[in-house]
Amino acid sequence: MILATIDINCDMGESFGIYTLGMDSEMIRHISSANIACGFHAGDAQVMRKTVRLALQHGVAIGAHPGFPDLAGFGRRRLDCSFEEVQDYITYQVGALQAFCTAEGGRLHHVKPHGALYNMAAAEPKLLRAIARAVAAIDPELWLVILAGPNAAALTAAAAAEGLRVVLEAFPDRAYDRDGALRGRNLEGAVIHDASVAAERALHMVECGVITAHDGAEIPMQVRSLCVHGDNPNSVALAAAIRSRLESAGVRIAAVE
Amino acid sequence: MILATIDINCDMGESFGIYTLGMDSEMIRHISSANIACGFHAGDAQVMRKTVRLALQHGVAIGAHPGFPDLAGFGRRRLDCSFEEVQDYITYQVGALQAFCTAEGGRLHHVKPHGALYNMAAAEPKLLRAIARAVAAIDPELWLVILAGPNAAALTAAAAAEGLRVVLEAFPDRAYDRDGALRGRNLEGAVIHDASVAAERALHMVECGVITAHDGAEIPMQVRSLCVHGDNPNSVALAAAIRSRLESAGVRIAAVE
Amino acid sequence: MILATIDINCDMGESFGIYTLGMDSEMIRHISSANIACGFHAGDAQVMRKTVRLALQHGVAIGAHPGFPDLAGFGRRRLDCSFEEVQDYITYQVGALQAFCTAEGGRLHHVKPHGALYNMAAAEPKLLRAIARAVAAIDPELWLVILAGPNAAALTAAAAAEGLRVVLEAFPDRAYDRDGALRGRNLEGAVIHDASVAAERALHMVECGVITAHDGAEIPMQVRSLCVHGDNPNSVALAAAIRSRLESAGVRIAAVE
Amino acid sequence: MILATIDINCDMGESFGIYTLGMDSEMIRHISSANIACGFHAGDAQVMRKTVRLALQHGVAIGAHPGFPDLAGFGRRRLDCSFEEVQDYITYQVGALQAFCTAEGGRLHHVKPHGALYNMAAAEPKLLRAIARAVAAIDPELWLVILAGPNAAALTAAAAAEGLRVVLEAFPDRAYDRDGALRGRNLEGAVIHDASVAAERALHMVECGVITAHDGAEIPMQVRSLCVHGDNPNSVALAAAIRSRLESAGVRIAAVE
Repeated sequence: MILATIDINCDMGESFGIYTLGMDSEMIRHISSANIACGFHAGDAQVMRKTVRLALQHGVAIGAHPGFPDLAGFGRRRLDCSFEEVQDYITYQVGALQAFCTAEGGRLHHVKPHGALYNMAAAEPKLLRAIARAVAAIDPELWLVILAGPNAAALTAAAAAEGLRVVLEAFPDRAYDRDGALRGRNLEGAVIHDASVAAERALHMVECGVITAHDGAEIPMQVRSLCVHGDNPNSVALAAAIRSRLESAGVRIAAVE
Repeated sequence: MILATIDINCDMGESFGIYTLGMDSEMIRHISSANIACGFHAGDAQVMRKTVRLALQHGVAIGAHPGFPDLAGFGRRRLDCSFEEVQDYITYQVGALQAFCTAEGGRLHHVKPHGALYNMAAAEPKLLRAIARAVAAIDPELWLVILAGPNAAALTAAAAAEGLRVVLEAFPDRAYDRDGALRGRNLEGAVIHDASVAAERALHMVECGVITAHDGAEIPMQVRSLCVHGDNPNSVALAAAIRSRLESAGVRIAAVE
Repeated sequence: MILATIDINCDMGESFGIYTLGMDSEMIRHISSANIACGFHAGDAQVMRKTVRLALQHGVAIGAHPGFPDLAGFGRRRLDCSFEEVQDYITYQVGALQAFCTAEGGRLHHVKPHGALYNMAAAEPKLLRAIARAVAAIDPELWLVILAGPNAAALTAAAAAEGLRVVLEAFPDRAYDRDGALRGRNLEGAVIHDASVAAERALHMVECGVITAHDGAEIPMQVRSLCVHGDNPNSVALAAAIRSRLESAGVRIAAVE
Repeated sequence: MILATIDINCDMGESFGIYTLGMDSEMIRHISSANIACGFHAGDAQVMRKTVRLALQHGVAIGAHPGFPDLAGFGRRRLDCSFEEVQDYITYQVGALQAFCTAEGGRLHHVKPHGALYNMAAAEPKLLRAIARAVAAIDPELWLVILAGPNAAALTAAAAAEGLRVVLEAFPDRAYDRDGALRGRNLEGAVIHDASVAAERALHMVECGVITAHDGAEIPMQVRSLCVHGDNPNSVALAAAIRSRLESAGVRIAAVE
């Protein structure tokens, strides 16, 4: 009996040229959605094709993972762009990844902004709306993955204003503040390294629709996806533990439909 | 009475960031097909959207104009890539431009490789086939624009092997060798600067299905498109003269259908 | 009789690849210092050599004009870098330009940050100090050109803390606020288009050591350089008018020594 | 008693942004010269400073390792540049690295072209001369590291024509053809994986001034440097074995003076 369904997503395709990053071939076995870099902050045309193929082979939903044009900074540095520039960057990158999906016999499923762009959009619904506008103009059936947190309602409304549906995601291996925001990485206990603790947190999120803050407060949050990282061997173990714990509790792992 | 139909194509959208290149807003009035740069050798996301809009406003067919990833060299320097790399670069760039077409309510019509990639493909059917493979995998209805010349038959066959149709193009303002090859730019008379001479050559190509070589020989060549340049004020006058001469002779100017 | 000496500086070498920007060959006749782009926000290796040669031919002092690594945004977009990253970017760019000076038989004279980096440094002495640290570690004899304005003392102190001397510059064709800040470009009258008005302002700055604010207030400011723009034909006329007015009043135009 | 002196060089500083490449902190203990990437094919400003510091800490001579502007291809793809473009690319990259040396209290010692540029220059003395011209114009005391092989004399003469001295280098872990050329990697036995075999080859090169070809022929070749790779754990073991074998035979390991 399936009690619930949840998506597990992971950033992928972040290698570039001679440089390899991420445990993609391991991680792909534990997730249901892959967010594939599009060449601006990471990834290149060869890596994109290869990663799209990998996702299709494993029946994992494909998402575009566009970022700022800043390979040197891995898209993690804020760049002061206009909304129009962001919109154009999204169109460009999503289109490029979509072509690889088409060429390999697949279909693009979602879009999730990367790094500084993700964080800036999570804080500014107008910026999120510019992103949503670009995505909706390509295909209004695409899902937009955004951060579950204090701005979730405003961000959802911003996407809806462009006719786009969102997927709220949470981070099982991150602590949360009382207001539902991710706890700053500079604070103690911000990152949860124990796989079994992260797995229990994931299950609690799915079963109860709440995120437990660092002080024990329970914040109602209907997340539809859990984000796991894939950049080191521990990440693989963590993702495996989360998936295993969820499935053993009767939770189905699948991309949002 | 319409005696014949011919396409006039021009490279466009070659500006980048603060840098402006090309007389796009002038040229667009004289052509039927625009080959829009895709961000690798020229163009950026803002320029691509703007140029797609310009083409749609003027009812001009939109083509992707992919090149080598070499902004500093404007895609004119040979880069020793594998066929797989070229194929992936084409997929990426065509996908990016296609997204702008979709977003702006248009539809991609053709693909024409740029610069060194164009020249290398014109000399090597296997490379042309790698390009055709990438294009066909996105949309087999897209036209591939290639050089009319001594390799036309082999190139056409290479594209056909991937299920893709070609448009052969000629250059009214360039001299040709006896074998149908473009006369080297280092040779005297390689470029025809007189607009009326170029216009008569264009008409002769369309009416008679031949290109006149520099020594007077007539080379049978069924071109379906004439390429004009758009990078200086003289280019605009040349394009206007060619279009005017053709139309006054009853030739219809339209993209290939 | 020479009453005073002032430097006139202009940004140069901002072309890139096939793209041309700036009236360098005209402007060079009216200035005493050239700030040459170093390949991050504009310029490339070919342009750098050519511009260094141009400056040497005209006896114009050569400065490095480093910016953020953002060619698409011409270095005008704020990029959220660490001080260490900025320091490293400065070392890299100044070193590259210095090599062209050495190779062409010249000597680097000053450094002036570009665009968003210049503006951010003008507002944040700690950032300015990171820049000064990079410059001083290459050659403590180099001058650092910074904005005359409300932070001039703090910026001068930040540079001095790294053993570096500054040149305060002002803009004859820009209006100033009462506190000595450049008047926002979005405000009426922010830019002075009349060449004779700008020339009189320049002379007043030099003769009286004050900048006249938009409301008539006179702000004491000992500037040693006047910045002129070089990106359009009017700029050339403006620079010529300023130089002519200054020289006719007995002011000597020369780089800071 | 020291019988002979030889340099051991290794490419370093090939990481970029978030991407890590090479076992630099291990390799540095076994070599006497580091060829540091300059940001065109690999490396960035942060990596350059860090690698210069590493070399200085270990008393290893610092070389600039300039390549084609092709990060995506790691500088391994031939790019059809003019000699002037190559010369300018060398000036730019060598200057940038030199600034990090100066800033960190060191001194640039040599220049070694990278990848496709190295291979093209090894085959074409005119190209090598363009590189030498750029290096000599910065500092004629810099050494230029080139391939020992059939063109060694012509390449040495090309460098000398610009007033530059060369260091001939050989590869102990590579097989050689009878004419002294590196045996193609596609041929069996082209790469020697056995550390002790490579170490004996290195010693033989140093002691006897010959390279043994794959068929046993002995080719006289006075190499002054041995190149080792540093991109994987086996590389470290190989470099350690070579150094150990040489030192135990009384050979001193030191950069060329």
